[in-house]
Amino acid sequence: MKIVTKRARFKNPLYLQSGRILEPYEIVYESYGELNEARDNVIVVCHALSGSHHAAGLYDGDRKPGWWDGLIGDGKAIDTEKYYVICTNTIGSCFGSTGPMSRIYPSNEPYRFKFPVITIKDMVKAQRILFAKLGIDRVKAVIGGSMGGMQALRFAVDFPNFAEKIIALAATHATRPWVIAFNEIAREAIIRDPDFKGGYYDPEELREKGLTGLAIGRMAGHISFLSHASMDRKFGRDYVPNEGLYELFGHFQVERYLEYNGYNFSKWFDPLSYLYITKAINLFDLANGFESLDEALERVRSRLYLIGFERDLLFLPEEMRQIDEAMERVGKGELSEYYEVKSDYGHDAFLVEIDKFSDYIASVLEE
Amino acid sequence: MKIVTKRARFKNPLYLQSGRILEPYEIVYESYGELNEARDNVIVVCHALSGSHHAAGLYDGDRKPGWWDGLIGDGKAIDTEKYYVICTNTIGSCFGSTGPMSRIYPSNEPYRFKFPVITIKDMVKAQRILFAKLGIDRVKAVIGGSMGGMQALRFAVDFPNFAEKIIALAATHATRPWVIAFNEIAREAIIRDPDFKGGYYDPEELREKGLTGLAIGRMAGHISFLSHASMDRKFGRDYVPNEGLYELFGHFQVERYLEYNGYNFSKWFDPLSYLYITKAINLFDLANGFESLDEALERVRSRLYLIGFERDLLFLPEEMRQIDEAMERVGKGELSEYYEVKSDYGHDAFLVEIDKFSDYIASVLEE
Repeated sequence: MKIVTKRARFKNPLYLQSGRILEPYEIVYESYGELNEARDNVIVVCHALSGSHHAAGLYDGDRKPGWWDGLIGDGKAIDTEKYYVICTNTIGSCFGSTGPMSRIYPSNEPYRFKFPVITIKDMVKAQRILFAKLGIDRVKAVIGGSMGGMQALRFAVDFPNFAEKIIALAATHATRPWVIAFNEIAREAIIRDPDFKGGYYDPEELREKGLTGLAIGRMAGHISFLSHASMDRKFGRDYVPNEGLYELFGHFQVERYLEYNGYNFSKWFDPLSYLYITKAINLFDLANGFESLDEALERVRSRLYLIGFERDLLFLPEEMRQIDEAMERVGKGELSEYYEVKSDYGHDAFLVEIDKFSDYIASVLEE
Repeated sequence: MKIVTKRARFKNPLYLQSGRILEPYEIVYESYGELNEARDNVIVVCHALSGSHHAAGLYDGDRKPGWWDGLIGDGKAIDTEKYYVICTNTIGSCFGSTGPMSRIYPSNEPYRFKFPVITIKDMVKAQRILFAKLGIDRVKAVIGGSMGGMQALRFAVDFPNFAEKIIALAATHATRPWVIAFNEIAREAIIRDPDFKGGYYDPEELREKGLTGLAIGRMAGHISFLSHASMDRKFGRDYVPNEGLYELFGHFQVERYLEYNGYNFSKWFDPLSYLYITKAINLFDLANGFESLDEALERVRSRLYLIGFERDLLFLPEEMRQIDEAMERVGKGELSEYYEVKSDYGHDAFLVEIDKFSDYIASVLEE
């Protein structure tokens, strides 16, 4: 599989939903496989909150491949022998595209809190402009899970002629307060952390030691990504054996897991990006700009494949089913299909139980 | 209704499950109604994590009554015209019974982290000693929800002759990793907060301004007490109108609720108590000291009334039903009854939807 990572720079302003602009801005993107001559074998993959453009393949020297490597590759469900797959780092993120720690032109100071609030609609608009620049005006499919699923749905509504198929997993049509509440734990923990310095932290320093507030926020995130059953299986009531049961800070395995993953995350993710991206997630409502969800969906011309996960506690499967029901209501039932993945893994299933839905995705792309 | 608040002091050591002792120790307790001459009209009420002995009635000058005032009072389900109701503040708590901010005898220094880890079993043992001192060796019922339900179940196993009836609501037979994970957010947020000063904070100062770490932990707690449906109803995607939608820190109503309740809580609850009590909850396993849950339940001689709440996400109703099933397995089915309250309010239902189960409790006590 051929992997190419590139950076595109745009001098024209990006007009944002907030009324503000980004100018100039950059988008980092990665591609897998080869664009055919007819330019009609493109699949766009959209990443989630903590993801990046590095969706598949292994970089030299890395131990871990891209975040959806189980799904994307030669002979895999998203077959890079057939398709040219592109994944862009969303604006606002911290992996190369313009985000809050990018430098303002011409002062060369990082934006920090001067960065504008961005939305899922803005993320998708920026991608659409990139694809136009690349000469890609129509794609086989847009696919993504969680926040990536929100982007896929936004593509369906905002750019009805862009994608033949939209495949959205483990997402929603409008973010519910349950999700906003978990994001709020992270927001408070980050902005109240003295080492955050009101946004004026030294990024090098945080990369060394991590930001505790971000670690705590991520720990809350991990709870929301799992389920009662997956936690029982992974951890049960197991105890770290060399720590006493009656020590106040003795560690249950689940505590150890959250700490390890939380503090580790805080060393490679930027806290300001976390604030901006969770804000974009909180603001997501497919009906935004329309009278209702139904009115938004009336615009859809792509085929929608809506995949819910049985025990997803972050975005309940019923939220995906409601989109299918709304498509039915507006007379577009034949363009829409709901598929529920049997899994008790929780939200993380879209990343870790790929074998449970990869055949379905392969068949959708073949159709 | 006659309300009496008292403090009992014990000079003999309390032998704890950890092998350590508390000596001396105090228990604050409150009673409602009057003890009859036969001393056989006693009902023991056990409080949850953030509760206190003040379960019912209104103190002079207060605006809010005790935490189960809807259930306890003259003519109410737990009828103080008939019953003499006692609620004690658990050891480890911060409302008067001996806890981590109590003073060590004879040095007069607060325990802080020198306070021993306590368990639900220890809390119940301390109460049993208090009741013996009061000349109460058998009661009509022990009742409690959440951590109060754990105490009620512990009474059933540890003191089989003490209670005629045990009524446990919204609890479990063994705390699952889901709950331990939420408690872990609070623990990290508290101990990492610089104002916590490694446990050497000034309690007066914290009462003024609150501890951010405790506020964040409590915010996580509130999520776990609610449900997707109750949050939808309470908050939806409503926005505080005078704050811009595209302000990074503009407030959804759910954010405002969590902040208000979190920061408010941090002014009236002690962070060390929060650490010790959540540890007791994490350690709770009714099978502790036995080979299995079944073996523990073989000791039960009280009638068990196990009340689960349909959409409780903290302690799933199935966890209460499993106790009923185990009672059946050990041939004590006739002593056990499972009742499921229809509610989508989440865990908080045991505190806020009293009208949905008060008739059931009244009938159980009448039986």
